[in-house]
Amino acid sequence: MPAEDGSRSRATLHEVAAQADVSVSTVSKVLNGRSGVSDETRARIEALLQDHRYQQRTAKRPAAPLIDVLCYEVDSPFGSEVVASIEQSARQRRIGMVLTGATEQSTPYEHWLDDVLRRQPVGVVLIACKLSADDRQRLRSRNIPLVMVDPAGTPAPDVPSIGSADWNGGYQATRHLIDLGHTRIGIITGPTDMMASTARLSGYRAALDSAGLSSEPELIRPGHFHHADGLEQGRALLQLPDRPTAIFASSDLYALGVYEAARSLGMTIPGDLSVVGYDDLRIAQWAGPPLTTVHVPLVAMAEQAVHLVMRLGDEPELAFSRIDIDTTLVVRASTAPIRAS
Amino acid sequence: MPAEDGSRSRATLHEVAAQADVSVSTVSKVLNGRSGVSDETRARIEALLQDHRYQQRTAKRPAAPLIDVLCYEVDSPFGSEVVASIEQSARQRRIGMVLTGATEQSTPYEHWLDDVLRRQPVGVVLIACKLSADDRQRLRSRNIPLVMVDPAGTPAPDVPSIGSADWNGGYQATRHLIDLGHTRIGIITGPTDMMASTARLSGYRAALDSAGLSSEPELIRPGHFHHADGLEQGRALLQLPDRPTAIFASSDLYALGVYEAARSLGMTIPGDLSVVGYDDLRIAQWAGPPLTTVHVPLVAMAEQAVHLVMRLGDEPELAFSRIDIDTTLVVRASTAPIRAS
Repeated sequence: MPAEDGSRSRATLHEVAAQADVSVSTVSKVLNGRSGVSDETRARIEALLQDHRYQQRTAKRPAAPLIDVLCYEVDSPFGSEVVASIEQSARQRRIGMVLTGATEQSTPYEHWLDDVLRRQPVGVVLIACKLSADDRQRLRSRNIPLVMVDPAGTPAPDVPSIGSADWNGGYQATRHLIDLGHTRIGIITGPTDMMASTARLSGYRAALDSAGLSSEPELIRPGHFHHADGLEQGRALLQLPDRPTAIFASSDLYALGVYEAARSLGMTIPGDLSVVGYDDLRIAQWAGPPLTTVHVPLVAMAEQAVHLVMRLGDEPELAFSRIDIDTTLVVRASTAPIRAS
Repeated sequence: MPAEDGSRSRATLHEVAAQADVSVSTVSKVLNGRSGVSDETRARIEALLQDHRYQQRTAKRPAAPLIDVLCYEVDSPFGSEVVASIEQSARQRRIGMVLTGATEQSTPYEHWLDDVLRRQPVGVVLIACKLSADDRQRLRSRNIPLVMVDPAGTPAPDVPSIGSADWNGGYQATRHLIDLGHTRIGIITGPTDMMASTARLSGYRAALDSAGLSSEPELIRPGHFHHADGLEQGRALLQLPDRPTAIFASSDLYALGVYEAARSLGMTIPGDLSVVGYDDLRIAQWAGPPLTTVHVPLVAMAEQAVHLVMRLGDEPELAFSRIDIDTTLVVRASTAPIRAS
């Protein structure tokens, strides 16, 4: 039974303590991530909190409010630009941003959630990460709102998420190449368990389909959004007997890898190969030639994430929000009409 | 008179309150960055704290310890890699890292220091930033240690700093080009008020000198470590009547700008132009061709910074540390022997 107000919340705290056969202060220690409780007792209390759907009442706004951000690959071009945008949004509200990196599996390191509970942030934002149902429940029982930006895995329906219009972006990128006369268009896709990658691939397929072109399996290559994938898959695509004349690299980092693949094979961009990236990170402008790419409004996404996580405490119905912000194609110098052969 | 222990510290707190003609709790509010004190009173109390060289006794390690990081250009390739390394060092100690971006002048935004005082972090780390003497004193009076990584401006002698062997790095880069037979070597330097840039330029000059080559003013170009500077100055250098055959771009981002300048002028790297970068950020490996550059041990620098800031509370004599970590040249594909003309 969720607590609706302070008095009922306190009653439930007593109930949990009684049922766990511990003192109220022990339950309180578990709630606030403090030490001095055995693992066994902690687990018993967590289970009871979950059974009771216990929900701590919202604390007063603390003197030094914090927001906790968990980010996959903090120092990747994508991660660092999203983090910088969230930092800016938080700073404008005079909220400190605690930043933590995630594991290679996009999950938190051990102790992360305990440390978050001790910090008692006003909210938690995940960037390209996922969180177990147990961990989500632990946040919920402490009344700490959670928002996901570009979630990894399948996002839970009751966790609000912010993304961009990935299907649309994939469609725009591919359509642009078709309009330039390309018919053999390769794609390097992202992790299959990530909604954003699946949607981009689906947009690619739909654009081919709408032009009466078929999507050939040999032109569809997997990756994990790393430069090395772009290099390896780019090379594989360009060495096909009937090679593509254009590649939709579904991340800017892939695109740089494809650039290097082309360079190492003696091909020029856009003369021999057109390339479209995705995200429009600053590396897209620094590439030689500057990269045509799908602009993802990271600043707007970050602002929405911070805005949402701050409001969730008062408006829990927002938990079912799923916000996708529009993408636009930015044409630079890496795409050109197909050469007459 | 600095407080040596708890009792004297408390005595001084009373003295300050008495002299300022306010209550002890008002002084305490100012110390902890709390609101409810007029600007005029706050200024009077700060001045007295400074006159008395007041120093708060070290608090017990808090349940949720934080470290505050102020960083210039959080989302630049350099900033994001240093931040990620500091995050990792802090995480291993179960300390949360609060990250804040700085102004374009490498200074904190308004309110930053107030917010830091409220958060009561175990330490503050600055990355490529500077802090006024007043702000440093405010940290000191609250017993919050400060460490600078690659400081902007002239670092104060009593603030420990971590850097890399910039002079040595500049020498190595230039020597490598000389060894390849280049005699006309351009350089794009960093901001003149940054020790690191001055040291790199000085290393460049020393290497030329040791080879009996003169350093010509027209080959020395200024910048602010941005891609646009590399592009603009690279273009200017390559359009000189007697153009350089090699450029020491004293940051990797400059090097990418120089790549684009060469490409736009129809020159190839390293065939027509050799380029050496600085920092060895991941963008150096992603460049086409992969960039020869000076490796700066950012992970080791970050680890030292966190280690130092954690020890300063107990060992104040470390405040005079100035640690420079060794650099190494990483030869990739952007440098080659000068062409016979």
